[in-house]
Amino acid sequence: MSEIRQDRATKRWVVLATERAKRPHDAVKRSEAAPEPEYSPDCPFCPGNEDKTPAEVLALRSPGSEPNGPGWQVRVFANRFAALRPEGEVRVENPEWFTSITGVGIHDVIVEHPHHNETPATMTLGEMLLVFEVLSQRFAQLAGDRRLAYLALFRNQGVTAGSSLHHPHAQLIGTPIVPTHVRQELTTAREFYDDAVCCVYCATMQHELADGRRVVLDNDHYCAFTPYASRWPFETWIVPKHHEPVVVFDDRFDTESFARTLQSVLRMLYLGAGNPDYNLVLHQAPLRDSCEDYYHWHMEIVPRLSTPAGFEFGTGIWINTVMPEEAAPYLRSFAGQ
Amino acid sequence: MSEIRQDRATKRWVVLATERAKRPHDAVKRSEAAPEPEYSPDCPFCPGNEDKTPAEVLALRSPGSEPNGPGWQVRVFANRFAALRPEGEVRVENPEWFTSITGVGIHDVIVEHPHHNETPATMTLGEMLLVFEVLSQRFAQLAGDRRLAYLALFRNQGVTAGSSLHHPHAQLIGTPIVPTHVRQELTTAREFYDDAVCCVYCATMQHELADGRRVVLDNDHYCAFTPYASRWPFETWIVPKHHEPVVVFDDRFDTESFARTLQSVLRMLYLGAGNPDYNLVLHQAPLRDSCEDYYHWHMEIVPRLSTPAGFEFGTGIWINTVMPEEAAPYLRSFAGQ
Repeated sequence: MSEIRQDRATKRWVVLATERAKRPHDAVKRSEAAPEPEYSPDCPFCPGNEDKTPAEVLALRSPGSEPNGPGWQVRVFANRFAALRPEGEVRVENPEWFTSITGVGIHDVIVEHPHHNETPATMTLGEMLLVFEVLSQRFAQLAGDRRLAYLALFRNQGVTAGSSLHHPHAQLIGTPIVPTHVRQELTTAREFYDDAVCCVYCATMQHELADGRRVVLDNDHYCAFTPYASRWPFETWIVPKHHEPVVVFDDRFDTESFARTLQSVLRMLYLGAGNPDYNLVLHQAPLRDSCEDYYHWHMEIVPRLSTPAGFEFGTGIWINTVMPEEAAPYLRSFAGQ
Repeated sequence: MSEIRQDRATKRWVVLATERAKRPHDAVKRSEAAPEPEYSPDCPFCPGNEDKTPAEVLALRSPGSEPNGPGWQVRVFANRFAALRPEGEVRVENPEWFTSITGVGIHDVIVEHPHHNETPATMTLGEMLLVFEVLSQRFAQLAGDRRLAYLALFRNQGVTAGSSLHHPHAQLIGTPIVPTHVRQELTTAREFYDDAVCCVYCATMQHELADGRRVVLDNDHYCAFTPYASRWPFETWIVPKHHEPVVVFDDRFDTESFARTLQSVLRMLYLGAGNPDYNLVLHQAPLRDSCEDYYHWHMEIVPRLSTPAGFEFGTGIWINTVMPEEAAPYLRSFAGQ
């Protein structure tokens, strides 16, 4: 019989559909795409094609190299088809009924590596640290912009995950509003805190560690697990052990430890789940609402191994065919490879 | 500049991304699939293959035809890979932390037509009315089942919309819980009602009709519009003019008028948006929470012409590249064809 499970941190319901149950191995859809070359002349993100992108706002470069030319390790510029633009003031229009806000914000592309065919799962730790170095600088640049209410950092890997370009890149969208889902997470977390005087993410992590069956990885600073109410096959969360509402790039974050953890998880998915298309999203508190006691930043990685349809979009209930208790040991079996 | 719009009924934010803006015509992705035959010997939903499905729970049949054989016009049976099953009692397990509920419920497939290559957009009105006749009977059968809290009726049309079988069919999932999204809609609608003493869907419809730019269709009983904060290109809602929290198949529903309206909208999408893959979802009040004053049933149709990715799943904010003010007149230009 299927099981209907609730995620305590979001109140989200999920159907674990045992009638359709798949062994983790059977849920894997290995990509049939041909391997990509290290350099692709038509790729606007490849070195030498810098004139095909908007001007860079930040880059890590080799000494002597010029902005908007080759010689970079990590490069940041505005998305050519930016959803939001940094010019102008945030203005709320509410003529009687139809509320709208000017589309002011930022929409960055962070090209993570010069090589067209690299992925975070296969980069060296040193290369991954460069990405975090750039993110740290970019977050600091944006911290003073009072027009921004939220910074959403995410990666779309692969076509089914919504990515149109293969070259490894993350995106950062800064919005002038607190997003709907974030507000819901904050509300649920605050209500939990007001009842339990405890952060719901700290409590979730403690229960996952105590149970152990869904733990993918556990070290001094971070814990990764396939959540009890996983929506997607192999959905994995990385939660910091130190309670912190937002990512602060200092000793508490411990960049090297986080980069190692993220890379280990991505490598297990790469090897175990067949290099799946995935979305990776950083969840953190809004910029000017510190939520210190009750919110807890974390990262959610959702491989796109199923297709959300009418039931999911209409009800918010997801149907998942892989039990997280089976996904975690399967992923763990690829640890250290 | 982009515009960030809020849907009043759900508080959902959407970015109307004018930088990526597409004319409605450019957002259309015409299916490249080969036409399907009227009968497909391998299709478990085709007449003559009834033994490939679970036993029917309801059917409209020609006089003299036998259950679970050919001769039906509309046929209902449990999904072979049902997410929920009707056996047993609803039992809540909450050992300290991890809440779960037994997967009791129903998961029906409603095969809408004997022909493999038919779609609701191209059926006759008489054929469409038979589908509603069956739905009316099925809803009545289920009304007495105290284990069910909610009935979610939906259609997934096409592979990108999550459908694995081409033969025209709808699905009905009855859950023992009120789904997360439904609860959020009810909460927002109740809060609006408590402030404005008015249903937020009635108010939305009145504002859409007064504005007129996004109205796709308007008759005595129903109104269809591309909502102000549309998440998807050509997203269309059908809202009944008579305030009613749930679908009741009586004179207030006016089956013929609804079937005509739905068919007109689906035909405009079929012709204008290139027979797109889509999800169609009925939104209504829970079975035992009548919400009479403040909730209002309606149908949402979302063509899958874009791919939700990390930003959408992480923040709940959707990026849409087609302005609903342009989608509606484009769809209207296909009216009556």
